[in-house]
Formats: sequence, structure tokens, C-alpha cells
Amino acid sequence: MRIKIINPNTTRSMTEKMAAAARAVAAPGTEIVAVSPAGGPASIEGHHDEAIATIGLLEEIRAGEREGFDGYVVACFGDPGLLAAREVARGPVVGVAEAAMHVASLVAPGFSVVTTLGRTRGQAAHLAERYGMARFCRRVRAAEIEVLALEDDATGAYARILGECRAALAEDEAGAIVLGCAGMTDLAARLQADLGVPVIDGVTAAVKLVESLVGLGLATSKRGELAPPLPKTYSGPLAHLSPGADIP
Amino acid sequence: MRIKIINPNTTRSMTEKMAAAARAVAAPGTEIVAVSPAGGPASIEGHHDEAIATIGLLEEIRAGEREGFDGYVVACFGDPGLLAAREVARGPVVGVAEAAMHVASLVAPGFSVVTTLGRTRGQAAHLAERYGMARFCRRVRAAEIEVLALEDDATGAYARILGECRAALAEDEAGAIVLGCAGMTDLAARLQADLGVPVIDGVTAAVKLVESLVGLGLATSKRGELAPPLPKTYSGPLAHLSPGADIP
Amino acid sequence: MRIKIINPNTTRSMTEKMAAAARAVAAPGTEIVAVSPAGGPASIEGHHDEAIATIGLLEEIRAGEREGFDGYVVACFGDPGLLAAREVARGPVVGVAEAAMHVASLVAPGFSVVTTLGRTRGQAAHLAERYGMARFCRRVRAAEIEVLALEDDATGAYARILGECRAALAEDEAGAIVLGCAGMTDLAARLQADLGVPVIDGVTAAVKLVESLVGLGLATSKRGELAPPLPKTYSGPLAHLSPGADIP
Amino acid sequence: MRIKIINPNTTRSMTEKMAAAARAVAAPGTEIVAVSPAGGPASIEGHHDEAIATIGLLEEIRAGEREGFDGYVVACFGDPGLLAAREVARGPVVGVAEAAMHVASLVAPGFSVVTTLGRTRGQAAHLAERYGMARFCRRVRAAEIEVLALEDDATGAYARILGECRAALAEDEAGAIVLGCAGMTDLAARLQADLGVPVIDGVTAAVKLVESLVGLGLATSKRGELAPPLPKTYSGPLAHLSPGADIP
Amino acid sequence: MRIKIINPNTTRSMTEKMAAAARAVAAPGTEIVAVSPAGGPASIEGHHDEAIATIGLLEEIRAGEREGFDGYVVACFGDPGLLAAREVARGPVVGVAEAAMHVASLVAPGFSVVTTLGRTRGQAAHLAERYGMARFCRRVRAAEIEVLALEDDATGAYARILGECRAALAEDEAGAIVLGCAGMTDLAARLQADLGVPVIDGVTAAVKLVESLVGLGLATSKRGELAPPLPKTYSGPLAHLSPGADIP
Amino acid sequence: MRIKIINPNTTRSMTEKMAAAARAVAAPGTEIVAVSPAGGPASIEGHHDEAIATIGLLEEIRAGEREGFDGYVVACFGDPGLLAAREVARGPVVGVAEAAMHVASLVAPGFSVVTTLGRTRGQAAHLAERYGMARFCRRVRAAEIEVLALEDDATGAYARILGECRAALAEDEAGAIVLGCAGMTDLAARLQADLGVPVIDGVTAAVKLVESLVGLGLATSKRGELAPPLPKTYSGPLAHLSPGADIP
Repeated sequence: MRIKIINPNTTRSMTEKMAAAARAVAAPGTEIVAVSPAGGPASIEGHHDEAIATIGLLEEIRAGEREGFDGYVVACFGDPGLLAAREVARGPVVGVAEAAMHVASLVAPGFSVVTTLGRTRGQAAHLAERYGMARFCRRVRAAEIEVLALEDDATGAYARILGECRAALAEDEAGAIVLGCAGMTDLAARLQADLGVPVIDGVTAAVKLVESLVGLGLATSKRGELAPPLPKTYSGPLAHLSPGADIP
Repeated sequence: MRIKIINPNTTRSMTEKMAAAARAVAAPGTEIVAVSPAGGPASIEGHHDEAIATIGLLEEIRAGEREGFDGYVVACFGDPGLLAAREVARGPVVGVAEAAMHVASLVAPGFSVVTTLGRTRGQAAHLAERYGMARFCRRVRAAEIEVLALEDDATGAYARILGECRAALAEDEAGAIVLGCAGMTDLAARLQADLGVPVIDGVTAAVKLVESLVGLGLATSKRGELAPPLPKTYSGPLAHLSPGADIP
Repeated sequence: MRIKIINPNTTRSMTEKMAAAARAVAAPGTEIVAVSPAGGPASIEGHHDEAIATIGLLEEIRAGEREGFDGYVVACFGDPGLLAAREVARGPVVGVAEAAMHVASLVAPGFSVVTTLGRTRGQAAHLAERYGMARFCRRVRAAEIEVLALEDDATGAYARILGECRAALAEDEAGAIVLGCAGMTDLAARLQADLGVPVIDGVTAAVKLVESLVGLGLATSKRGELAPPLPKTYSGPLAHLSPGADIP
Repeated sequence: MRIKIINPNTTRSMTEKMAAAARAVAAPGTEIVAVSPAGGPASIEGHHDEAIATIGLLEEIRAGEREGFDGYVVACFGDPGLLAAREVARGPVVGVAEAAMHVASLVAPGFSVVTTLGRTRGQAAHLAERYGMARFCRRVRAAEIEVLALEDDATGAYARILGECRAALAEDEAGAIVLGCAGMTDLAARLQADLGVPVIDGVTAAVKLVESLVGLGLATSKRGELAPPLPKTYSGPLAHLSPGADIP
Repeated sequence: MRIKIINPNTTRSMTEKMAAAARAVAAPGTEIVAVSPAGGPASIEGHHDEAIATIGLLEEIRAGEREGFDGYVVACFGDPGLLAAREVARGPVVGVAEAAMHVASLVAPGFSVVTTLGRTRGQAAHLAERYGMARFCRRVRAAEIEVLALEDDATGAYARILGECRAALAEDEAGAIVLGCAGMTDLAARLQADLGVPVIDGVTAAVKLVESLVGLGLATSKRGELAPPLPKTYSGPLAHLSPGADIP
Repeated sequence: MRIKIINPNTTRSMTEKMAAAARAVAAPGTEIVAVSPAGGPASIEGHHDEAIATIGLLEEIRAGEREGFDGYVVACFGDPGLLAAREVARGPVVGVAEAAMHVASLVAPGFSVVTTLGRTRGQAAHLAERYGMARFCRRVRAAEIEVLALEDDATGAYARILGECRAALAEDEAGAIVLGCAGMTDLAARLQADLGVPVIDGVTAAVKLVESLVGLGLATSKRGELAPPLPKTYSGPLAHLSPGADIP
């Protein structure tokens, strides 16, 4: 099985972290390929960044279909472009927020999300609702760290995230922590050891869910909302994304 | 007051219909400018089309800010890019689904949406939830007409839409009809006359709401989720949309 | 267009404030008439006060229909009698809580209401739910000021309201403030200037929404729940409100 | 224990039916007094009727407090004035819709309401939500009978109501029926016999709930929303309802 | 009327307290029998304890049907086995959490639950949702007392419970208190006197609701979900509970 | 990795079907053991059956802990005893309804459940709510087949289930089917082939989710609601289930 992880931002060090984390949990026989788009934002910290990053994501999905991948992970906690990607891909597409929240609901009666910047909390809450996970999501907390600061040991990011996690356990009736940024994938094990409760990273969770879906012979239903895009020619610079014969 | 209506698809005949409808309801002193992006899909019929059209929309918002508009209408019933646009614009930005649903809730205890293709019903329902309007939205009905068929008198679009509206009144306990496509703006008055209940078109509704917000001295709160995008340089072909000094 | 603002309490100084605020935002060509009922409570601070004030409100709606108004504003934040008024009036009727909450949801992902007495918070929360706005309403806060104290500069009302607004921004993840009493209409601009976020007053918001509805050719749907009251003769002192031939 | 049943409409034959039904279920030692207001609508079939009838209801509550009743039943399925009455009364006040829905939820996983006119369905649905009973309320059905037709054997009311009940069992997954009008109180036993499922009449249900509350030593909490009305003098014809020293 | 109170734990001192409290509120003519199962947990403090206690509960229901009881109270705040018991019993079965929450919603706009151990809060919240009472339940608070400590005066249980109740009134906007353990039945009156708001004990509340249902001629609907268990022979040690001819 | 599938009914042919289906999807290195309890109901078709079967389930969980399993599947669509099992087990425990619904939500915007007897629909709907999946669950349909009829080719079970699935696609806006009984595990592939949409069987779905959780190093959070049962000695025939030192 071949799974493509698409980090919709262009920070390749982050993509490499994700690839390493994914390979550590992948089943024997699963090949992990992790990519970033050729262009777009270096970090995704709001709706505008997401809208731009979605284009790169869709280009990578389109390429992935040509390359024959069995499934995809959208590796940004805002799950940008998830539904558009599902219209295009033959195999399953899972977002990291989606994966982390679902998995957390299987191991705890409630979880809190600990994310980077406060301004992204709204999107996390929106996704929790959209996925049916609002009833499990006790609170979305922000450590007020910019995404790229996660790549820089000197920023004290770990300590601040750990502090928010501890506050979540003390104040939110949370039994587990969901990490609210795909760039935190390398912190999950250490946090889980420090906190003594499940700490869920969406990247690895999504890889296991894609493996599960493919293993079950399941892919996005093409009946109704997520049917392939109707064939049409887009004008202008994004014409290469026009839905056509190559989308089944 | 200057309001820019952005039809995110590239079908200019549709844009012109919107401009005419908007001017017919605009207050004295309101200048309406209606545009389509330079490129993108000719019609928006799914999540992939929306993702692409969002880029053109954001380009027009960005241009609008340079041109000094007081407010914006996102004139596609999926309200693509609405939150990203709000991060960028100084003045208010209102989506046509948002406007139509809010207005409908002021004149009826419940409404049904009548839209084009069945595959778009999920997005309409999602927006109804997002705007708090799910409790008023009795049902989303599709006349199963492609968007561009609305531009072609020979397709019998009016009769099919009227039929769905009548079914909504008979079966859904709906007291009003929301038209589920910005391209239906020219049908509202005729449908209202034929049906004897309020029929709400989002384009005109959004124009009045933008006028209202500007008249009240209100614009998007820049505290929290919808603060201006953090300044950063996007790499690649969408670099011209990088958030920078021109966004307040 | 002629809009009648009905302040359901009998404090005429408050009614005059509302008229002034309304005229300041009304479009050219909109005539504002603001009235209080001949009798009833001087302030509305609970369900019993609301029930009594509803009678005066309905008398004024009935008179308004004879006087030919195009639309109405119910200018008390409990929106007393709103649905009964809609059964009677030909044109649209908008409540100030309704208007303020809808408008706030267009300019912020969440708002807090700042009202007078704590005992009225339940009604505000109930209306938020009823209008679909509970998902936007982060919290209802009370400054614990009696309504008539708003009319008396010596009570320090402004400072206490400002304090609650600041607490809302700091603690509630609110991006905007909704003023929870029609008698606060004169404070909105000053609060907005002091706080730097949108501050929404329901009286002015409702005027603009009524203008919008009338401008769109929309009025309450008479199909179903809000059809005109069935003709019948009420016995006793309220017989003058019997629904009869004068209600269309 | 003395319980006052207030039929807010002025149709005394209906009030007498309620008294008889109530006495048939009352515990030994419970005295039932059933009254109609001196004035108001002969039947309550919409929001306007409810607003008017609320005044008569509050007059009867006020009188009841002087007469020393232990608790009250608001005997119209719209539960008009319920919260205002709770502000005034020392003892518990229960509405018939409230009582019927709560009781139904104890004996069936779901119920349907069968009411008189379709225009009243919205209020029934609103109350179901308000009481937390929306999750049990499968559907509100109307037999399309005017309220006073229930008093006239020639109208075939029973057969039409029975037909709606049967439809509810067949189509709604309802396990019980809630009668949606206090004037149906005399039909409950016959319908239950004909249908073979629980049929709940709100008048008798409310009597038992008031008995229960009084027996448990419970009355409306005066902390917060339902504290006694603040003392003030109402001007005009409703001055006799001014909250004063006689409300504890 | 004969009502059987089943305390699903085996602590007979607690059962006797319940019997005494129940008899103090029962109507003349109501016979109260209170029992504990022959075996099972001495206290119920989690899902595992509940699952075990359900067996003893069902044995007592089965015996109760042979003994001819008119109705049952499930006297543990987790309401274990409630739906299974309803499948078996001819008469009504009411849980103490169910009863307390419904009753509280009739006397206050909101209540807080004060329970024993924090680990049981999830079940209380789940039941609040299941019964439609989540909208009234402001918070579930734990005094962090083991259930059997309620039987031991030396533990200071009263003071800790009182403290949580006071916190609920101060912080939760609660107008009433629901006691979250059937073993607190003897504390309700004292707490109500100390707090000045309604304090609801589920045991007595459930007795009154069973009396009400029986008095109204109502029992669990056997149509659909709660029909008698299909006849079948259980193998193994629980074979005596096999559903057979003795279940109507 | 060793996973124990516990079919809580005693029909071993069904258990064997589950084992076969599970092994067909298990990853290399996963050992599947499928068991039925020694005693209990041969089929689970209501709340009473579930309550009894929970005891056998918990015995098997307890045995499983001694046997060193890494995770468990509760293989009955009512997910009986799931939370009690989670209190006991060190590793993850997943129910088949839970698994199927979560997985379905990843591959379709909405699904319908097709189950055996209509009386079990309530439990399925309850679980959908509990897991946050109600928003995806369009409808629960019953083929009105007794569970054991699934084991008998002569009953025409397949045709009736296929018919309900087709109705779900035509009428419910469902994009996928969830099989509402663990005994249908052998029908999933055939139904998926016949229907052309994803058909999800909970047994195989749960196996993949348990594999995922174990692979991610995740188990039930022992903080709060699902902490190990407090040590205590149960009296009577179920004393062997007393929580003690063998539960970590």
C-alpha cells in the first residue's frame, strides 16, 4: 500500500518530520511518501493561508492519482481542501484534525486540542463540529506559538505546549490531548510520557486510518456530494487543475 | 457607498444579471460594481470548483481594497472563500447564502432552499449549520439543473425550479423559499408572484446587508480568528496574494 | 419608507434616544416614528413586565397598520410580542435582540451580550437559541444596572458596561459586543471607540434590517404559523384588540 | 392541597371538562378549582391569542395567590404566560404542554403530538425544544380542527384526531401520543383504548406534576431569572397587575 | 398502589434511608417497599459496578412482577438497567436521575448536579443528555466523597456537599440543586433549608413520578424499542432471567 | 499484536464468521482470537438481552487481560458493556457500532444503518448520538429479520437487507451503508459489489481501529471516567468479577 502525505505548507523540514513519524507507525508493506507543494505559504495560520495552500494540495492530489497512490493524508490541522481532494482521489483521503479527533474519541470521554496560535482555534472548533467531535472536544487551547517556531528549539515551544496540556488536564476535564498542528508530530511521544494520558498526533493517526480504510476496501463514496468534479475547463493560470478525463 | 459584488465564476452574463438585480434594490448613493475573476471555473458545482474559484475571489478582494470599496458580496451560494476574504477586507464581506438565509429567518419560521444540482446540497446544509440557520432550513431541494442551464431559456429551468418550490411549500412546512444559486437572482420576483410567499435571492439580500453594515459603521472584527493574515511571502505562482503591508 | 419603532416601555426619554439613533443611520427617504405605549411598565426587567408590555406593543402595531407603516421595530431586548406582532402586521417586524445578534454574526465569529440585570440573561439566551444565534453567543453578561439607571448619568452605568465589555473580550473569546438593552443605543459608538471591536446596538441594527426587508419587497410569510390571527371577538377590556377585518 | 387550573380561554364548557378530568386523577386531599379569565379569547389559536390570554391568566394567578393556592396549571397547550406566572406565584406552576411532554418521555422513547390547527404546530415544536423534549418529539401533527369544534360532537373531531394518531404510530416511530390541546382532555382514555399505546393529556398530567412538586416541598426557584417581578407601577388599564408588596 | 424501590447496591442502611424518605412523601394509599439485590456491589461508582448491579436490579424487577407491583424506582443515580427494566415491567419504571432532573427543570431555569466521585460525572452528563435535560444541567460537580462515606457521619460529607452546592449557586447560574446519589436522600431537606433554593432528591422525586404515572393510567409503551424481551433461553448462570411466558 | 473479538452472544457459528472476516483484513502480525461467552443469550435483540450479555462480555475481557491481549472488539452492534470493558482493559476496546460509524463518516457525507429488528433501532440511534455520529447517520432501517435468521440461508435475509440498502440510497441521501449487526459481517463485500457504494461492517472496521490504536501506542485514558473500577468485593454469584488487584 502506498500512502501520500501532503503537507500543504512548503516547509520541508516539517514534511520530513512527518514522514519519519509516519514510517514509525506504518504497517509492514505500507510505503510512505511525504511531500510539500512546489509553492504556497511556508506555514498555515488562518483562512487565507489555507485557501492558498489548498491549490498546492490539489496539485499534489492530482499528481498522486497519476502516481497511483492508494490513499492520502492532508497534513495540516485545518484540513484544507479535504472535500475537494475527496472529489478527485479514487482512494481515501483523511485529514489530520479529522484523524486525531476520531482517534481521541476512541480512547477518552473527552479531549482538549492544544494548538499554535489562538487565531486558529475557530477553525479547529469548526472541524470538531463538522466531524461530530464537538461533544468530545472540551476546549481548544493555544500555546500562542507561530507554526515555524516549532522548528526552532530555541523558542521554548515544548515547554509552552506542555504547560497548555497540563492546564487542559487540570481545568477542562480532558482525558486526552489532541495536538493541534501537524508540525507537532515529533512531540507526541514525549508529551504522552510526561503527561501520562493519551496524546494524539494527527499525522500518525491519519496514516493508520488510511491504512485501515484501504485494508477494508473502502474509498470515498462517489454517490452525491463527493462525486468527481464535473468535467469543465478552468480558464487562466489554474487551468491545469481543470477536471477532466483523468479523474475517474 | 461602493459595494463590489464578486461572482466567483467567470460567466459574465451571470455577473451582469447580478449587477442589474443589485442596482434595482440598492439605496440611493450606493454604487454597485459587479465583477468576475479573470480566470477559474465558468460555473461552481462542487468543492473542487469552489477551491479554485476562491483564488479568483481573493484576487478581486485584494483589488477591491486598492480600489477603496466599502464592502463586498461573495456571489456564489457556496460562499467560497468568505472567511479568507474577511481576513483581508477592511469593510464587511457577506456571502449570498449567508444573506439569504438570515433574511429568510426574519420573514418566516422556516424556509426551504431550492438549488441547482443535488451534489451541492451538502454544502448548502453545511452553511445553514455554520450560520445558525439549520433550525430554519427545512430542506435543501435540487432542481437538478446545471448552473449554466439557468442562462439558457430553452432548458425549462424556470418550470423545474417552480415545481421544486411548490413541493417545498406542500411538503416541507416551509413558509419561504431561498434560491440556492446566485444565478437565479432574476427569477426571484417572478417566483414570489407565482408562489405567494417570500422568495429570497441572496445577491440582493447581501447587497442590503452590506449596506446595513456599512451604514451602521460595522466591519469584520479583527480580534481573533479573522485578524489580517500574518505577513508572509507565498512562494510560486500565487505569490501575488502574499499577505503584506497592503492589508491593514 | 415609514418605519415605526415601538419602545414597549413607557419611558419616553428612552424612546427619544432611540428615535435619534435610528434617524442617524436611516437611509435617505426613510421616515422614523418612535413611540411608547400609552400604558404599561416604565422598564422591562422580567417575563411579567414583558407580558404586560406586549399589550401596549400590539396596540401600537394595530395603530401602525391603520397609519400605513411599512415596517416595525420592537425596541426592547426581550423582543416581547414579536411573533404576535408578525401575525398582525402586513410589513416586516424585527426585534432588537434579533437584529443585533444577526448583525453581530456577520462581523464576528462570536459575540457576548452585555445587558442590564442578571435576571434577564435567561431571556437573552433563549432568544439567541430561537434565532439560531446561540452558536455565536459566547456569553450573556449583566452589568447589574436597572434599566432606568441608564437614563441617569450619575449611576456610573457607562463605566460598568464598559467593564463588562472588556471582560467579555478578555474571557469569552468574543470578537464583538451586542448591547443587551434598547436603552443603551446611545452608548454604542462610544463603546466601539473605546473597545476597538464592533459594538452592535439592536435599535439601529433593526432599522437597517427593516429597511433591507422593505427594500427587498419582503414581508412576513402569511403561510402557516404567522398567518393573520383568526377573526374572533375577545371579551372584556382587551376587546379592542380582537382580530377582525382590519387585519389583512 | 389546593390546585388552581387556569384555562386561559373563556370557554367555560372546556374549563368544566378539565375540572372533571382533573378531579378524576387527583389524589385524596387535593382540591381542584378550575377557572377561566373574565375576558379574553374564547379559543387560543396563535401567538396573538396567546398574548391576550396571558393577561387573563396573570390576573387569575394573582387572585390565586390571594386565595392561597398551593400550585397552578396553565391549561392551554401553548403554555402562555408560564414564566411570568412563575415569577408571581409562590407555589409551582406547570403548563399542560410541559407536563404532557415530560410524562410522555417517561413512558416511551418517542411521541408525536396531535393538535388542532396546523398553525399552532410551530409553538408546540418551540415548547418541545424549550423543555428539552425535542429529542422525544417525533412530529407535531394537526387534525386541522378549530379548537371550539372539539366542543361540538357533530364535527367529527374524534375520528379525525384518531386518524392522525394512527398515522403517527404508523409513520413517526412514535410509541405514545401527546394530545396537543387542553380541550382534548376528555378524549384521552378513549384514544388510549382505541390505540393501545399511552395517550397523554396535559391537564391531568399537569395536575399530577403539581401534586408531586407540592408533595416534595418544591416551588419555583426565586434565584435568578424567575425572581418576583421588581416592584413598579404599571400605568394605564393594566395597572392592577403592577408588581408590588403582595408578591413575595 | 404498591411501588417497589430497588436500590441496586447491597448497602441495606442506604436502602432503609430511601424507604423512609419515600414514605415521607408518598400519597395516602401508596405502599412503599424498598429492597437491595441479594448480591452485587456495595456501592456503584463506575460503569463496571453498574453493569454488575444491573443483574440484581433485573432480578428484583422480575420478582416484583410476580409480586404484583404497580411501578418501580431504580434508585441509583446512574439509572442502571432502566431500559431493560422497562422491557420487563408492566407498570412504569423511573430512574432517580431521570426523576430528579425532570423535576428540577420544572422549578428552575437551570440546575447543577452535586455528586460523589468525579469519575461518575460522565454518566450523569450522559443521562442529562439522554433525558433532554442537558439544556437545564449547568454543571455536574463532585464532592469527591466515596458513596459509602455518605453512611458515615465522621467523614464530613455534609459539609463538603454543602460547599459544592454553594459553589454551584455562585458560579454556575444554577437556580436549583440536584443531588447526584440516591444515598443523599436524607440530606435534601437540610440542604434546601441551608441554601434557600430547591434541592431535589431523586428517590422521592421518582416516587412521586411513579405515583403520577400510575394515577394517570400510564405505563411504558410496548410498541417498538421497549416491547417485552423476545422469548429465548439464556444459557449458563443467568438462565433464570431468560425472557419467557411470565413477561407479558 | 493479539486482538480478542468478543461476540457477546453464544452463537458460535456467528463468532466463527467474525473470526474469518477479521483475519481477512488483519495486518500481517495480528493474531485474531474470537470467542463467545460461556453463557448468555444466543442473540441480542433488545436492552434486556444486552444487559445479560454484558456479564459474559466482561468475563471475557477479564480473561483476556490474564491472557495478555493487546486490544478488544465488542462484536455486537449495540456495543454492550463497552465503557465497563474500557475500565477493565489495559489496551483499547472498540465497539462494532462505534467502529462502523466512525469509518463510514470518513468515506461518505452520510450513511444509513441497515439492521435486523426494528426494536433495535433506538439503540443504534442512541449510539450514533453518543459517538458524535448522529450528524452523519441519515436513518436507521430495519430489515425485520431476527438475528439468528442471518445464519439460515433459507430466510431470504440477503434479499431483504439488499432491499433496505437500496431504499436507503434512494430515499435517505445516504452515500454509504453501515451494517447494523455483527452477524452481517459476511455480507459486506457482496452488498458493496451489488450497491456500488461503501458498505461498512463493524467487525472488520473495529479490528482495523484496534490495530491502529495499538500501533499508535494508544489505550483508554485512565484519567477520569474510565479509570479502573475501584477495588471492592461483589457479593453473590458475580463475585468473580469483583474489581481487584488484577486490574491495573
